[in-house]
Amino acid sequence: MTLNVPTATLEHSVRFADGAVHILDRRVFPSRTEWVTAFSPTEVAKAIRNMVTQSSGPLYAACAGMRLAATNAAELPLPAALQALEHAGTELASARPTNGHPRDAVARILDAARPATSTPELVAITSQTAQDVEREYREAGLRIGRAAVSLLPQHATVLTHCWAEAYLFGVVAAARESGRRINWIATETRPYLQGARLTAHSLRELGESVTLITDGMAAAALASPTGVGTGPIDAVITAADRVSMDGAVVNKVGTLGLAVAAHAFSIPFFALVDAPDPAAPTGDDIVIEDRDPQEVLEVLGTRTASQLVTDAWYPAFDLTPPQFVTQIATSRGVFSPERVADHIHTAADALSTPLAPIQETP
Amino acid sequence: MTLNVPTATLEHSVRFADGAVHILDRRVFPSRTEWVTAFSPTEVAKAIRNMVTQSSGPLYAACAGMRLAATNAAELPLPAALQALEHAGTELASARPTNGHPRDAVARILDAARPATSTPELVAITSQTAQDVEREYREAGLRIGRAAVSLLPQHATVLTHCWAEAYLFGVVAAARESGRRINWIATETRPYLQGARLTAHSLRELGESVTLITDGMAAAALASPTGVGTGPIDAVITAADRVSMDGAVVNKVGTLGLAVAAHAFSIPFFALVDAPDPAAPTGDDIVIEDRDPQEVLEVLGTRTASQLVTDAWYPAFDLTPPQFVTQIATSRGVFSPERVADHIHTAADALSTPLAPIQETP
Repeated sequence: MTLNVPTATLEHSVRFADGAVHILDRRVFPSRTEWVTAFSPTEVAKAIRNMVTQSSGPLYAACAGMRLAATNAAELPLPAALQALEHAGTELASARPTNGHPRDAVARILDAARPATSTPELVAITSQTAQDVEREYREAGLRIGRAAVSLLPQHATVLTHCWAEAYLFGVVAAARESGRRINWIATETRPYLQGARLTAHSLRELGESVTLITDGMAAAALASPTGVGTGPIDAVITAADRVSMDGAVVNKVGTLGLAVAAHAFSIPFFALVDAPDPAAPTGDDIVIEDRDPQEVLEVLGTRTASQLVTDAWYPAFDLTPPQFVTQIATSRGVFSPERVADHIHTAADALSTPLAPIQETP
Repeated sequence: MTLNVPTATLEHSVRFADGAVHILDRRVFPSRTEWVTAFSPTEVAKAIRNMVTQSSGPLYAACAGMRLAATNAAELPLPAALQALEHAGTELASARPTNGHPRDAVARILDAARPATSTPELVAITSQTAQDVEREYREAGLRIGRAAVSLLPQHATVLTHCWAEAYLFGVVAAARESGRRINWIATETRPYLQGARLTAHSLRELGESVTLITDGMAAAALASPTGVGTGPIDAVITAADRVSMDGAVVNKVGTLGLAVAAHAFSIPFFALVDAPDPAAPTGDDIVIEDRDPQEVLEVLGTRTASQLVTDAWYPAFDLTPPQFVTQIATSRGVFSPERVADHIHTAADALSTPLAPIQETP
C-alpha cells in the first residue's frame, strides 16, 4: 500500500550534485522553475546575496557551499585546503547580515573540520557535518512546528507572513500528526511576493486551504469577527530570522505591523525560531539589512510606480519589540518573550514525539 | 510675468465635452494616459464601478454624468426628462456603495432640478448645480487642507496611504500658502497601487519630495526614530471615504493598520473628510464594499500569485474605530473623533483664508 503524502517543491530547493550547488531560483518560482548553478562558494554567496534563495534557503546553500569548497580543495595540501574552507565560510556567512543560521552553520562546520590531519579527512568531516546541520535543521523545524501547534485549537485559522519554509512545513506536519486542521491566510509580502509565490503555492501543493490577502489587508482581517470570511483568526504565526535574548523578533518587514494589529485586537502572535541568539542580547544588537529600494518601485522586475518617483525605502526586516510578541515557539518548547533565554537551558525531549490529539467533546 | 505654478494631471481627470463624459483611466495611468468616453449615464456608472476612476473621481464623474443625462434628455417632455434624470441619478449614486459623495451630489442636483417647469430649465439647473457641486468640493478640499496643515509643524514628514485626491491637493496648497514644507512618504497601496501610481506621481508633478514604501513597511517606518531615513514621521494623514457621526473612519483598506501602528508608536493619525455623514450614526452603518478578489492575485492585470492559489479576499475599505483616530480635519475645522458631529453646527469661516505662517525662532 502506498500512502499518498503530498510534498512541496520547495522542501528540497538546494542540491549538491556533480561538483556544483544547484539552487532553485525563488525570484521567478513558481511561474518558472529554473535552477541557478554555482561552481564555487563565491558564486553560492552571490546567489544568496542576490535573493536566488532566502528564508531557510541560505542555510541549505551555506551547507552545500561548504561541501563544494571542500570538494574543490580535495587536491590541495591540508593548510591550503583549510584556508580555502575558511575563506568560503567567511563569504557564505556574511552574504546577508540579518539571519544568523548560515553563520552558525559555517562556524559549526569549521569547528569540526579544523582538527583534521589530512585533506581527505577535512573533506569527509566537512561533508558529514554539513549534512548533519541540514538534517538537524529540518528535524528542528518539526519540533518547532509541534511547539507552535500546541498553542492552537483543533480547528485553527492562522494568518502568516512571508515564507517560513522549514518551520512552515514543520507546523503543517505537526498539525497533521496530531489530527488538527489549519485554515491558512497568507499575506502576499511585497516587494518579493514570497507569500503569494512561495507560501501559498507550497501550502496548496501540500493540500492545505489558503486565502491570499495583500499586506495592507491584514489589520482588517484581524479586526473582523469573520476574518477573511472563513471565521475569526486564532493566531498570527511567522518565522523569525532572529530572536534576541530579551525576546525581540526580527523577521521580514511587515511582521511588526501584523504583531501590533494582532495585539490591538487581542489575537496572539507566535514567532517561530530554532533558538534565540546568544550573540544578540537585545534587539539593538541585530543588524537590519537595507536592500536596493528599486524593488519597491517594481513588481517582479516590471516597473509599477510612476516613472517620476525616484526615492523609495526597503528595509528587508523589521524588529518587533517583546511587548507585541505573545509566545515564541523554539525547537525546545514554548517561551514567553521575556523568558526566551530559558531555551538555552531547556532539554529538547518534550518535542521528540507527536503531540497528543485534542479530545473533542462528542 | 508668468508664475511657474506646477499642476498635476489628475487635478482635472473628468471632463464633460462634446456630448460625452471623458474619464482619465486610472487603472493604467501614469504608464499610459488614456481616456474612457461615456455616452450615457449608464456608461459613466459602469466606468465608476470598474474603477476607471476612484477617490474624488466618482464625485466628478457623477456630476458630469448628471449633466450628460440632462443634455441627453433635452428633447424630451418634462416628465420624461425628469424621469431620465432620476434614473441616471440612481445608477450614478449606487455605482459603488462605500463613498457617500456621489450619492450626496446626485441628491442635491435632483433636489434643485425637480421644481423645474420646463425641460430647458431642468437642463440648465442640472448643469449649473452639477458645476456648483464640483467647484464647492474643490474649495472644500483647500479648507480641509488648511485644517490638516494647522496640525503640522513648519517642516513635517507625513505618511499617507492610497490617494486623497482633492484633499491631497488641498494639503499641498495649504502648506505652500502658509510657508510650511512637507516631506511625503507614500504607501504603494496594493492591489491597485494608487499610492505608487497616483499619489507619488501627482506629488512629484507638484514638485514635492516623496519616498515610496510598500504597505507592509509602514509600521517599521512609524516605529523608527529616523522614519524612512529622512527623519521621524510627524503624522499619518489619509482621506476618509466616510466618517460616521461617532468618529469611525472608513477609508482604503490598509488605513486601519496604519492607524493602529501610529497609535502604538505615539504618532498622530489625521483623517480628512468634507464632513461626517449624518446617514451613518456609527461605523456599523457604513457598508464595506467587497471587490473581485482576482485583483489580489494580480498586479496591474498580470498574475503574480501562484497559479495553484484560487482563494483571495479583497475588502476595498476598512473601518478605523475612533480610539485609533487622533483628529479629523473637515471643511469646517479640526475635530476629535468623539466630537466630529459638532462639524454639522460649525461655521466654515475660519478656513476661508490662508493659515498664518509659523514664526520660526531665528
